[in-house]
Amino acid sequence: MSTAAPTTGPGLSPARPTESATGVSTPLGLDRARITGGFWLDRQQAVSTGIRAGYEQLERAGNLQNLRIAAGQAEGEAVGPIFADSDVYKWLEAVAWELAREPDDDLLALQREVTAVVAAAQQEDGYLDSVVQVRLGPEGRYTDLPWSHEHYCAGHLIQAAVAQVRCTGDRELLEVAVRLADHLVATFGEDRRHDVDGHPVIEMALVELYRETGNRDYLELARYFVDARGHGLMASYGKEPAYFSDRVPVREATTVEGHAVRAVYLTAGATDLAAETGDESLLTTLDGQFANMWAAKTYVTGGFGSRWDYEAFGEPYELTPDRAYAETCASIGVVQWAWRMLLATGRPSYGDAIERILFNGFLAGVSLGGAEYFYVNPLQLRGGSTPDENRSPAHGRRGWFACACCPPNVMRTMASLAGLLASRSEGALEVHQYATASLDGGGLAVDVVTDYPWTPEIRLTVTAVDDPATELRLRVPAWATGATVSVRGEERPATPGGYATVSADWRVGDEVVLTLPLQVRTVTAHPRVDAVRGCVALERGPLVYTFEHADQPAGVELDDIALLPGTARAGEHRSDLLAGVTPLNARGRHLTAPDEYAAWPWPTDGGSPRVGEPVDLVAVPYYAWANREIDAMRVWVPLAPDGTPA
Amino acid sequence: MSTAAPTTGPGLSPARPTESATGVSTPLGLDRARITGGFWLDRQQAVSTGIRAGYEQLERAGNLQNLRIAAGQAEGEAVGPIFADSDVYKWLEAVAWELAREPDDDLLALQREVTAVVAAAQQEDGYLDSVVQVRLGPEGRYTDLPWSHEHYCAGHLIQAAVAQVRCTGDRELLEVAVRLADHLVATFGEDRRHDVDGHPVIEMALVELYRETGNRDYLELARYFVDARGHGLMASYGKEPAYFSDRVPVREATTVEGHAVRAVYLTAGATDLAAETGDESLLTTLDGQFANMWAAKTYVTGGFGSRWDYEAFGEPYELTPDRAYAETCASIGVVQWAWRMLLATGRPSYGDAIERILFNGFLAGVSLGGAEYFYVNPLQLRGGSTPDENRSPAHGRRGWFACACCPPNVMRTMASLAGLLASRSEGALEVHQYATASLDGGGLAVDVVTDYPWTPEIRLTVTAVDDPATELRLRVPAWATGATVSVRGEERPATPGGYATVSADWRVGDEVVLTLPLQVRTVTAHPRVDAVRGCVALERGPLVYTFEHADQPAGVELDDIALLPGTARAGEHRSDLLAGVTPLNARGRHLTAPDEYAAWPWPTDGGSPRVGEPVDLVAVPYYAWANREIDAMRVWVPLAPDGTPA
Repeated sequence: MSTAAPTTGPGLSPARPTESATGVSTPLGLDRARITGGFWLDRQQAVSTGIRAGYEQLERAGNLQNLRIAAGQAEGEAVGPIFADSDVYKWLEAVAWELAREPDDDLLALQREVTAVVAAAQQEDGYLDSVVQVRLGPEGRYTDLPWSHEHYCAGHLIQAAVAQVRCTGDRELLEVAVRLADHLVATFGEDRRHDVDGHPVIEMALVELYRETGNRDYLELARYFVDARGHGLMASYGKEPAYFSDRVPVREATTVEGHAVRAVYLTAGATDLAAETGDESLLTTLDGQFANMWAAKTYVTGGFGSRWDYEAFGEPYELTPDRAYAETCASIGVVQWAWRMLLATGRPSYGDAIERILFNGFLAGVSLGGAEYFYVNPLQLRGGSTPDENRSPAHGRRGWFACACCPPNVMRTMASLAGLLASRSEGALEVHQYATASLDGGGLAVDVVTDYPWTPEIRLTVTAVDDPATELRLRVPAWATGATVSVRGEERPATPGGYATVSADWRVGDEVVLTLPLQVRTVTAHPRVDAVRGCVALERGPLVYTFEHADQPAGVELDDIALLPGTARAGEHRSDLLAGVTPLNARGRHLTAPDEYAAWPWPTDGGSPRVGEPVDLVAVPYYAWANREIDAMRVWVPLAPDGTPA
Repeated sequence: MSTAAPTTGPGLSPARPTESATGVSTPLGLDRARITGGFWLDRQQAVSTGIRAGYEQLERAGNLQNLRIAAGQAEGEAVGPIFADSDVYKWLEAVAWELAREPDDDLLALQREVTAVVAAAQQEDGYLDSVVQVRLGPEGRYTDLPWSHEHYCAGHLIQAAVAQVRCTGDRELLEVAVRLADHLVATFGEDRRHDVDGHPVIEMALVELYRETGNRDYLELARYFVDARGHGLMASYGKEPAYFSDRVPVREATTVEGHAVRAVYLTAGATDLAAETGDESLLTTLDGQFANMWAAKTYVTGGFGSRWDYEAFGEPYELTPDRAYAETCASIGVVQWAWRMLLATGRPSYGDAIERILFNGFLAGVSLGGAEYFYVNPLQLRGGSTPDENRSPAHGRRGWFACACCPPNVMRTMASLAGLLASRSEGALEVHQYATASLDGGGLAVDVVTDYPWTPEIRLTVTAVDDPATELRLRVPAWATGATVSVRGEERPATPGGYATVSADWRVGDEVVLTLPLQVRTVTAHPRVDAVRGCVALERGPLVYTFEHADQPAGVELDDIALLPGTARAGEHRSDLLAGVTPLNARGRHLTAPDEYAAWPWPTDGGSPRVGEPVDLVAVPYYAWANREIDAMRVWVPLAPDGTPA
């Protein structure tokens, strides 16, 4: 875990460790990893339209105008939430990765136009927050740090600036970020103002700015912000300290708690800090926190935060499917955290976690068309659900939100997705995620061609060899029972839950085939998850499936179905369905409540539901739900009672 | 349903119908119904200390000071929530009923002192809301009606005033209420300002003021407020209209939705309106709404509103036990609604509903000591739960809250509880709830002696006879299989779910014994209640039981127990436990998760928990939980898997 990885090239990637960082791997970056076809290119191209629409949304919502007013280029009042600037910055970050993925002069012009507005809005001393400047004036600075999101906005600005300089070489935003960061360094710290922002993200950002600039002041300020938290600084602000991850210091915590996005942005930043400061103890602590979260506070879909109230993690195993909050941003935050842990520890389980989140909890957050978004990602919607507020999934996905954190977060994640595919370490190229792509690890470059997640074969062809002894390490997901890997036609088993390491005296044209069997899996939840007792969920490959009303025979109410064990099978792939999916077919029963259940008191001593006719049920990938209509949907389905054969 | 009931005597009771009202029954009132011993007298005497402590709490929280400032008797800023006055008024109402229950000169002096402050705070034109007056000034009136709670405060003032004049004859507060109501009549209506308050209660209050004064303007304004709702007037106030019960007109609704307390205060007021206007159609609609709520949106404990977010009813059958909000005020609101429906329709199921709520969801809202309160009443608390905010049950009950609606609501309900015991109609005395009490129905008076809910016998002795032909109607709860009634020693079966009607040529000293068998019942939830699939709850008589950590053998984690079918039995009554309860003993299993459940992926194809050692489990009445420690608790417990005998 202490091998310093070599850094070469510009490294067009978020979370790029320095040479002195603790860690086993270095990300390839978008210059060395390109998605060239298949499942994820389709998704990237869809979201590409969303990125372009984002500019209009930011204009319509007033975020850009806020900055113009602060810059003295326009008149008026600031509109929107106090953290409105952050949406602009996340969009700018998305644009930078998108330009690295697919250069586009029009988009570059938009980037430069918006960057110039941001630069003009910055104040003399480096301070920048257009809403605070316009709405509250100079006296309003840092007067309500738990809620003002001033460091949160700064963090997103810094992340955008780092992405911009890495992807397009433009330095204007980086100069703004440096001035702002210097202002923060001058203002906050143990011997200066002792205070932290209510919403983390500045920690990750400052470490990245240190990586980009080499200025250790930023790393030190990140350390300060990480360590100042957890002492109840925010106890008196109307919410419990736990909400702000401010109840227990991150070095002492054994789990994550409170507002989910806040919590995982903090742990992701702490992981960056641990890597750059060589703090193995902190890394071990974070590893334990992740394991606890994954075992007890993670939805099967890779969703995080079960509570609508306070958008928070619940107690361990408090994972109700219907009222799952599972904010899209929380899934994105966990991808960021897991990626940093993977680079630092090399553990394949982090790759498994990223895969589960990307294909399910994250991807459900955006429409197949790429320009509409879910804020909240439940695992069940009852028939006839009524919308209860703007975030409700009963409304379907939306083009934008009053609180629009999720849309640009989806954009920046999707545009930079190739950065998560692979990494390199001394003498090795590691492939973590499978997509049709070109990967250049330095010692070895490969082209990957696959129809994954629909078909099991992942075919890698060597396209360049610098060091023929380079090891190729291929992640074999823990679910991939029966996986095999063949090199030059020679097949051998590949153990799930680790890396299949392939060595050969590589020559251009060599072919490696990884086969990940795609049997349908019927999974159950931990017995302590009260909310889905007696239920199962269906998975195939990296995909979690769900049942939508639209696919079931007429008259079938999803609220009343039960699944017959062992009947789920993959159907034919259908290119005409939901932008192309392989549905699952299963056999079930339509249960009905006995009449005496119409009102209290319900029957005593376990009266059973009446077993109706057998029914044929169809499941589709969870990520694709709510792209036709918003109606009943459920991931977890009861198993049919004993003694009800098909 | 259309027999006009005669009204005689002062009628010291809330919700007293006029002689012209639709309805079958008239409440006895506190002058004719007195609780004289047993279970409920203990509870009333405990809460009596809470009522006295309430004055100090209102002083400490600043509610009384707000009124003094508005009256010009003090200087300063208004403190607390915008609806702070309502807590004072609910407390005043509680004091009035308490004085009818148990006269006390000191308490009467406090009532008069506070009443004088309220009167002094009223403005020239009748307007009264101390927080609005002090904080916003005259320009602030009715500027934010969805949130300002101005009519809500007015409603509670009117209810207190009516209680005061009925119980103590004091008219000062009634005069304040009349001036305020006249101001509302002059201000709001179809041809005046077309608007309603975000929080109902004014509807019930105006009907009561009409009943007390005979002024039909108040009845007409109540009708206006009921009918103006449901047209999306409040759509633009940042929450969906459903939150305010403003999505569907009450005459068209088929269920209750949105904020639970708002919803049921509205339906309770609409029931008053229907009764006083002879509107059978509205009554039938409300009857359907209640039935829908009871079947699909009611916790087994008689708790209402499953969502913490927006304190709202969820979808039908969305009844998670751990995140049940089940605000104490919502249970109280449903008691008020059910009582009005019972008087108007005579249906015994409303009496059953009131009993379930009073003994469980309502009573859990107050400590055994009588002066600490729950805002939120979950049906499950996991081991080691961490407090997440002030309303959290993980903190235990509290003496007061920043939003202190529940404490004085408990007080006024407990103090007026005798009013719910019985009613009279032409030629009959109806007994709905069983407590040691004196009941005077006019034609017939009885003394009731019982150890209910611990023992099955309820003994009624005739103490006065005015009309020897008076029918005695005794509610037989739907759960009371095997119930009997004996008159002068002659026993016959009594059918559960109705009234046992007893006629005799009554003489003083006649004895009637109703026996309600108290077998332990194991109940299951409707099959659509996903959250407790495979679980059962234990009931005995009117009580729902729960398992608390404190009563289980060392090492038993409630999160891991399962119950063995048919093993629950009533234990010995223990006067030393929880102010005297009969616990239940049951046999269970301690389940543990297989090791492979430690992290995703969990076992496929329904891997089962490991069955551990058999354990002896103890359940206590739900109302008594959290009076020793705050630790794991659960009402719903999984049944042990098949094939695990004791």
